Amino acid sequence: MKLLTVGSVAFDAIETPFGKTDKIIGGAGTYIVLTGAYFVKEQGVVSVVGGDFPKDTISMFQDKGVDVEGLQVKEDEKTFFWSGKYHNDMNVRDTLATELNVLGSFDPVLPEGYQEAEYVMLGNLQPTVQRTVIERMKKRPKLIVMDTMNFWMDSAWDELMKTISMVDVLSINDEEARQLSGEYSLKKAARKIMEMGPQFLIIKKGEHGALLFHKEEVFFAPALPLEEVFDPTGAGDTFAGGFIGYLAKTDDVSFENMKRAVIYGSALASFCVEQFGTEKLLDINPVELADRVQMFRDLVDVKGHI
Amino acid sequence: MKLLTVGSVAFDAIETPFGKTDKIIGGAGTYIVLTGAYFVKEQGVVSVVGGDFPKDTISMFQDKGVDVEGLQVKEDEKTFFWSGKYHNDMNVRDTLATELNVLGSFDPVLPEGYQEAEYVMLGNLQPTVQRTVIERMKKRPKLIVMDTMNFWMDSAWDELMKTISMVDVLSINDEEARQLSGEYSLKKAARKIMEMGPQFLIIKKGEHGALLFHKEEVFFAPALPLEEVFDPTGAGDTFAGGFIGYLAKTDDVSFENMKRAVIYGSALASFCVEQFGTEKLLDINPVELADRVQMFRDLVDVKGHI
Repeated sequence: MKLLTVGSVAFDAIETPFGKTDKIIGGAGTYIVLTGAYFVKEQGVVSVVGGDFPKDTISMFQDKGVDVEGLQVKEDEKTFFWSGKYHNDMNVRDTLATELNVLGSFDPVLPEGYQEAEYVMLGNLQPTVQRTVIERMKKRPKLIVMDTMNFWMDSAWDELMKTISMVDVLSINDEEARQLSGEYSLKKAARKIMEMGPQFLIIKKGEHGALLFHKEEVFFAPALPLEEVFDPTGAGDTFAGGFIGYLAKTDDVSFENMKRAVIYGSALASFCVEQFGTEKLLDINPVELADRVQMFRDLVDVKGHI
Repeated sequence: MKLLTVGSVAFDAIETPFGKTDKIIGGAGTYIVLTGAYFVKEQGVVSVVGGDFPKDTISMFQDKGVDVEGLQVKEDEKTFFWSGKYHNDMNVRDTLATELNVLGSFDPVLPEGYQEAEYVMLGNLQPTVQRTVIERMKKRPKLIVMDTMNFWMDSAWDELMKTISMVDVLSINDEEARQLSGEYSLKKAARKIMEMGPQFLIIKKGEHGALLFHKEEVFFAPALPLEEVFDPTGAGDTFAGGFIGYLAKTDDVSFENMKRAVIYGSALASFCVEQFGTEKLLDINPVELADRVQMFRDLVDVKGHI
């Protein structure tokens, strides 16, 4: 198996200045595998849902080449549910409800075929669950990418540190980088975080783009100025799915190739936010994607001598 | 005369998390001409100071090739004074004191030699004063760049609109762009603002870089992740000075050349914030500047095919 993702498969209810949804399909794992599917045909997902989760969404995953043997269905329980509200400044959101349900007792079981996956994406989850996935691999993957959030810094610091020390790439936002390192300067923060274990650090800045750090090197990918951001939910997970998907497809984990992966991740995230939930992700045309990637390149392009 | 700048020449007292200054030399005009001096030898400044302003600073301007015939000295009055305090998030500052003094009755007199300047930089000032400068030019300059701020949007809307309609490039920050246009999306904001008159719009985003808009085109220049920002005062004016200085030196006002000008402005602003006040600006080595510009290019550089 080329790519293995662990992450929540869930229901979301979202309110933004542009509208409101009932329960729709969401979860970090969902966004990651849907995005990964643009790059890799051999991917598996490790997650858990309840009996209330629509079977046709699981079939849709399969149609997109996602192996669902690792997706546990607990028929008598309920799926993880998150509800949130975004303000005019979409960088800020309030969580209205978090119902862990099946996720509360999640034991990530890796089917035989998953245990030698070359690329592993740890979507945002309890750090202990993320670590269990690493420990259940039969051999060390070529690359482990980990996403996390401030919630675990507040509630599970020691566990988080252990898991961070085992991964190659950590992906967090700017505020989280500051909290994790205790440094305000992102350059200093990056240095401290890379001392915790990861060789690479991605700092996501939402509408302000993303930074990729490695040793003393740094790369910046802008975000595209968009007409309208309808719903930022899943943008970070879509970014992660595009990032690791591109790396898995090209099978090259050099810093230079990671720059390209960051641009693909950014381009896909820019699609994600144009509609509610996963809607836009389900059907991006390859030409549309190539055009979008080119827009990211043009945005910073300066011709000739300076 | 190649470049004419109108802008405050003033005293500042600054407090940041890294330290505190007594009264030091500041003002938009000061930052702009000191930065412009790296590009242009024939520049003049239109401003006013009181008798308390140090004569050796005026001599220093002259040593850097700045014509000071347009700098009025009102011996019996006091120089404009601003005092402010920055928080950990240096994007936010509190104004502690604003003493207009000589600036309250400022009538910008343009000496004969200034009236045919090819490039005009209107530093942040009352919009009426900025407009008076345009009206006192003998012929239409090749390019007029205007900086302004939210204060004038709140207190002098109609005057501001009149002045904005007369300039080629407007330079403001992201919050100001949103206020000026009533649009949250910067892309929509840019379109509306360009309908007010300017062919080009620069939106400064501080530590998140700067956007340059022209018709349907957009260019993004990142900000360099810095070890430490000691004092953001004057960064926007330094940016403006670098931007118009580069355009005046290369005498090319195409969108493509403005991209380079934005990078020069950003590079110089990144020096400005490394020390208090104008300190660092006084003595940037040409090799150091070329290196810094290269760092901005490398930051977004992706080699080869994607």
